[in-house]
Amino acid sequence: MDLKGVIRTIPDYPKPGIMFRDVSTLFGDKEAFASAVRRIAAPWRGQGLGKVAGIDARGFILGGAVAYDLGAAFLPLRKPGKLPFETFEESYELEYGTDALHMHVDGVYEGEKVLLIDDLIATGGTAEAGVKLLRRGGADVVAAAFLVDLPELGGADRLRALGLDVQALVAFEGH
Amino acid sequence: MDLKGVIRTIPDYPKPGIMFRDVSTLFGDKEAFASAVRRIAAPWRGQGLGKVAGIDARGFILGGAVAYDLGAAFLPLRKPGKLPFETFEESYELEYGTDALHMHVDGVYEGEKVLLIDDLIATGGTAEAGVKLLRRGGADVVAAAFLVDLPELGGADRLRALGLDVQALVAFEGH
Repeated sequence: MDLKGVIRTIPDYPKPGIMFRDVSTLFGDKEAFASAVRRIAAPWRGQGLGKVAGIDARGFILGGAVAYDLGAAFLPLRKPGKLPFETFEESYELEYGTDALHMHVDGVYEGEKVLLIDDLIATGGTAEAGVKLLRRGGADVVAAAFLVDLPELGGADRLRALGLDVQALVAFEGH
Repeated sequence: MDLKGVIRTIPDYPKPGIMFRDVSTLFGDKEAFASAVRRIAAPWRGQGLGKVAGIDARGFILGGAVAYDLGAAFLPLRKPGKLPFETFEESYELEYGTDALHMHVDGVYEGEKVLLIDDLIATGGTAEAGVKLLRRGGADVVAAAFLVDLPELGGADRLRALGLDVQALVAFEGH
């Protein structure tokens, strides 16, 4: 299954010079969606995974499906102001300014094996915040998995430097 | 499986008098999560469903899993400014002001059978906007499914008035 071929590229979005990788066209292809979920889940069958943590909001789509496929629970890592219970917060840098990711303080168990999932890794700032949140909660973050990697932006290397396995199904050149 | 018992209630969130139904505790329980996905998917096995449409953002979690379980594709219905391609837009009323939901104009095929999913239905304004978007795209919206219904707020009746089947796994009294 050619997953790369069903991802739409939108030039100059959200601003000139950016080639936006639109994964909604992959989600909209039932064979590609099923294939992506199975390929992300495959290494973790029978590995005692407790939860899949998905990053707000496209990470919820794959994350929910992978969690279900593996018989694991699902944990949402969310933008500020979205979680109703007490949270841990981790800030991360954007090109201009900062943003933050939140996790419920009781979102993971001590020692629980957790797989982090998002649709795409670019610079890795958001994913790194996710790893820090999960570790603050006591989780054993076994790996981070993505549909798309933009290797030139260095995000996967940044996560590997945190001691994580990183899996991505497809890679695109450029930003 | 007692799904209702694993949903956490947070009193006075986001404001005094509101009993917030926090479904993240259900997603965080692997048996409850799997049971919820299976129960939502069950009526649609072998019914030729093309897509599951999930509402931004908690609807993505269940929606992605149900789509995967049924071998269907997934379509995100999103808040403004989140979709990179050309969109249809439907506004809906909030208690104060309005908000809107967007769908890619090529998100569904003419005559495609689509199941709409969100975590919770209250007044039904968001879900109604979702139904309108899907119908604008030519979809045959077969039903709307939710984890939680707040029947006193009338959302399920509002969707039935649009000619839809409505399924909810649990109901809570009050707002």
